[in-house]
Amino acid sequence: MTITMYQASIPSLIRSLNNLVSILEKGAAHAEARKIDPAVLVSSRLYPDMFPLVQQVQIASDIARRGAARLAGLEAPNLEDNETSFPELIARVQKTTAYLETLTPEQIDGSEEKSITLTVGKEKMTFEGLPYLLYFILPNVYFHVTTTYDILRHCGVELGKGDYLGKA
Amino acid sequence: MTITMYQASIPSLIRSLNNLVSILEKGAAHAEARKIDPAVLVSSRLYPDMFPLVQQVQIASDIARRGAARLAGLEAPNLEDNETSFPELIARVQKTTAYLETLTPEQIDGSEEKSITLTVGKEKMTFEGLPYLLYFILPNVYFHVTTTYDILRHCGVELGKGDYLGKA
Repeated sequence: MTITMYQASIPSLIRSLNNLVSILEKGAAHAEARKIDPAVLVSSRLYPDMFPLVQQVQIASDIARRGAARLAGLEAPNLEDNETSFPELIARVQKTTAYLETLTPEQIDGSEEKSITLTVGKEKMTFEGLPYLLYFILPNVYFHVTTTYDILRHCGVELGKGDYLGKA
Repeated sequence: MTITMYQASIPSLIRSLNNLVSILEKGAAHAEARKIDPAVLVSSRLYPDMFPLVQQVQIASDIARRGAARLAGLEAPNLEDNETSFPELIARVQKTTAYLETLTPEQIDGSEEKSITLTVGKEKMTFEGLPYLLYFILPNVYFHVTTTYDILRHCGVELGKGDYLGKA
């Protein structure tokens, strides 16, 4: 018995992005309840040279979208980085899951050894499909979803691990 | 072509825990260079009711150790939660990777549908092996490694994404 590249990728990404939507909704509700300008939360960061919440969400979306597309040998749709509010960020994450849902097992499966080259900053990186999924896409998406959670927790939003892990 | 439960679990966990060791080493070096009491960093947290760094590391170790053991149908070795310093936390993570390295593909493979029951807080949870790995073990370990990183970044330790992702 074995598992497929599709099984190991798309459902995990969709689930984590759905959890990210719930986390962002709780951030928006918190701002509304406390009469906090939501822009304050959206632009919050944990340290001056770390990315603010808005970019954490944009990058989670980019890595999931582009990562899955590369496994499938496709070009991911581009999204402009112009979100400034919780509803806009939620819409971006939902566009991302909608795109992931269009990808089929037939497109993703068999990509274990596919050669994938990407440019991160100035660095050109080449991976095979399986290490690209396991050591780049998944930990990276989880990093940015967790950091979004951590920024909101640091701002006092009531979130728990269940919001991050989601329900089965 | 497909992948195995071992391929999807043990190497990712070992890699992330090795990256956690590097992150903790940078925390220790920062404290030493700035003459900061390392205990301040080890007990730092992002919000009063979040776990401090020491527990983030302990939990990352617990989930990886117990999660992998459950997939293999084994009982994970218990570790006392008594670490109070960077060297002790690093030793705990290294004990964890040493344990993971004892597990073989023969022990982990075929656990996709194995029924796994665990108690989280007061809640009893039952998973099949594959969702347990993909939706519980991996995101959870990445959560606690990322939060350790975020706590240290928030305290001014110079870390970058490369420290979290590690090198291929």
